[in-house]
Amino acid sequence: MNKQTIDINRFLADFAELKQIGATPEGGVNRPAFSAAHLEARAWFRQKAEAAGLSIQVDPAGNHSAVLKCSKPGAPTLLIGSHLDSVYQGGAYDGALGVLSGLEALRTIKEMGKNLPFDLEVIDFSDEEGTLIGMLGSKALTGHFSEDMLAHGIAPQEKINEALDRGGLQPNQIAAARRDPNSILGYFELHIEQGPQLYNENVQIGVVTGIVGMRVLRVVFKGKANHAGTTAMDARQDAGLGASALNLSLRQRVLEDFPDCVATVGQMQFKPGGVNIVPEEAVLSIDFRSVNAGHLDRLENEINNLAKQQADAFGLAFSIERTLQHEPALMHPDYQDSIEAAADGLQLSHIRMPSGAGHDAQNMAAICPCGMIFVPSREGVSHSPFEFTSDADCVNGANTVLQSVLHLAGA
Amino acid sequence: MNKQTIDINRFLADFAELKQIGATPEGGVNRPAFSAAHLEARAWFRQKAEAAGLSIQVDPAGNHSAVLKCSKPGAPTLLIGSHLDSVYQGGAYDGALGVLSGLEALRTIKEMGKNLPFDLEVIDFSDEEGTLIGMLGSKALTGHFSEDMLAHGIAPQEKINEALDRGGLQPNQIAAARRDPNSILGYFELHIEQGPQLYNENVQIGVVTGIVGMRVLRVVFKGKANHAGTTAMDARQDAGLGASALNLSLRQRVLEDFPDCVATVGQMQFKPGGVNIVPEEAVLSIDFRSVNAGHLDRLENEINNLAKQQADAFGLAFSIERTLQHEPALMHPDYQDSIEAAADGLQLSHIRMPSGAGHDAQNMAAICPCGMIFVPSREGVSHSPFEFTSDADCVNGANTVLQSVLHLAGA
Repeated sequence: MNKQTIDINRFLADFAELKQIGATPEGGVNRPAFSAAHLEARAWFRQKAEAAGLSIQVDPAGNHSAVLKCSKPGAPTLLIGSHLDSVYQGGAYDGALGVLSGLEALRTIKEMGKNLPFDLEVIDFSDEEGTLIGMLGSKALTGHFSEDMLAHGIAPQEKINEALDRGGLQPNQIAAARRDPNSILGYFELHIEQGPQLYNENVQIGVVTGIVGMRVLRVVFKGKANHAGTTAMDARQDAGLGASALNLSLRQRVLEDFPDCVATVGQMQFKPGGVNIVPEEAVLSIDFRSVNAGHLDRLENEINNLAKQQADAFGLAFSIERTLQHEPALMHPDYQDSIEAAADGLQLSHIRMPSGAGHDAQNMAAICPCGMIFVPSREGVSHSPFEFTSDADCVNGANTVLQSVLHLAGA
Repeated sequence: MNKQTIDINRFLADFAELKQIGATPEGGVNRPAFSAAHLEARAWFRQKAEAAGLSIQVDPAGNHSAVLKCSKPGAPTLLIGSHLDSVYQGGAYDGALGVLSGLEALRTIKEMGKNLPFDLEVIDFSDEEGTLIGMLGSKALTGHFSEDMLAHGIAPQEKINEALDRGGLQPNQIAAARRDPNSILGYFELHIEQGPQLYNENVQIGVVTGIVGMRVLRVVFKGKANHAGTTAMDARQDAGLGASALNLSLRQRVLEDFPDCVATVGQMQFKPGGVNIVPEEAVLSIDFRSVNAGHLDRLENEINNLAKQQADAFGLAFSIERTLQHEPALMHPDYQDSIEAAADGLQLSHIRMPSGAGHDAQNMAAICPCGMIFVPSREGVSHSPFEFTSDADCVNGANTVLQSVLHLAGA
């Protein structure tokens, strides 16, 4: 193992500077994609990269990169990245930590005078957080963007167009950010966990096995609206009971039989919704996730069975519609091994774990091997000004990025 | 038993005429309080009463009455009533049947030349259905109306004022409709059941024991909002689970231990309500009813226990607020006996039963003895154009009103 580490003082000073851009009174940052604060953060990134003697690249999706070429012409590129944008009133760590650790890795390797067998590129992806359409930059780079997505984004199209304009993007050019997969060797991303596992278990590094796949179902139970005073309890077809029972039985089933899945009923609504009317209809959402596509299939099948059981028990009809689906994105075994070797070399404790949240790596995984590194989030808090990761954990993460790259290079 | 019965042909012909006023294509009526159709129905009622030689009375709450005085000056009045207004897009029977049966009873008794020991008055109460404030007429007559109710009605105050104006009511005069309880002997009301019990059990007459009391609770469970992907199932404080479990356990408890109560969760809402966020808060309404005030107390206590159990089970906090309360209104035993004797004399099958729905009788019960008579509603349908009671059942009800009055008079 190469004993070289990052320049801790420089790295932390950079982090402290970046945190001031778009800073909020509570200690977080407010840098939605292509806002003034986000553009200022990107200018800061370019200036830092140029000062380090790295070359700057900006693609038609607005992805900003700093590049360190190796001596071999036409060598593939190893990308290291994340994003400088934030959710509205977000935290200082989500995304920023990954970009800064990539920048620091390139600077350190440049200073080491190492000639790796691949080009290195630290990339700041556009609109990861979805204040516009979500993962715009990584979708475009991997060929998953089409212009009609701008009409069906998370923000209204007018707001999206204004933001793209501020960022200097032309809607009909964004898809041209697509890169030839053969030109890309792989992708590393360091991110805060956004969950409590590492923090609670006091583990320093999470080696991500995959980004969970996610499906969202809309379940509708149909019964009969009736007078709450004149309808006997055993003469009812109360749709709300089916929905309530499904919520409880789903949790029980996941706890018992699906240890690698989570399932959440985040929305529930009874109709017509009068206090004095037996609910005719109950609508609930089920969000369920697993890193294993087979388990998603099995759980979806189980949800159908549970809904049928509850509908039968309460004299209801039901329907289930799948409203969203993201396939799991597996991290590459070699990249997981490199991260683990790096952590071992740094004497950092580590576990393998799935990522329950989405990241640009899930798009990248479709075109190249990927590796993701997690560091602890205090109490799992995320997308909040109170998001916090200690300096020591940030440094551990950045050193793990550096060593993973060197390990992959066999250097 | 007096063998005199109502004039069936006249009664049914009247019903057919009245049904045309505000008729809707589906076969119901649309006569919200003080709408053109409602005012037309009242004009029709006055004209019928005058044609029968009855005297007309209109009070400051807009209650319309037809009066048949006995020979004794200062005798108390036995009221027979219901209402000619309907819910929006309602049925032809709810309310109208009670007013017409009262009118027919007065006509019949007048034609019999009977001199009863009390004055008879058939009353059409204002705004029973609550398209304005609900039971406006009976509240005013019994001294339960205050002008500030107009600012907190079911309709917006502006709509209420417009309607009162159309009805010729002056807001600051309505309370003057209050009558001296000593001037009132009692009150009879015939109504369709608005539930399925008589229809399902093939019983002709329901002798109402009381109008159920009703309480509405707003229960709030508080947990913790968390990321649906990164929060392990056993690390959650999902407020939605507490609400779902309370819905199910409440039903179970009522079925097992509260045979004379009904309880309904008509509203349920999860917050923040994102499909991908573990619910931080869940709010549900519980409407529960019984004709027995002690049972309401006991069930409310039980609901508190159940909410606490579920909160403990899922790591939640909870609060319960009572948002509405109507005490049960018991029908007078003597009036129940008179109705039963009348039904027996008419060889009609009958059962004693509570009323799960509210009626003007619940206000009247505060100032005088009351009796209520139910006839079957086909499949329990009510507040709907498809509300239906057969001609035979309407006639049975009207004859029971007549005979109950005669029985009470000892005639």
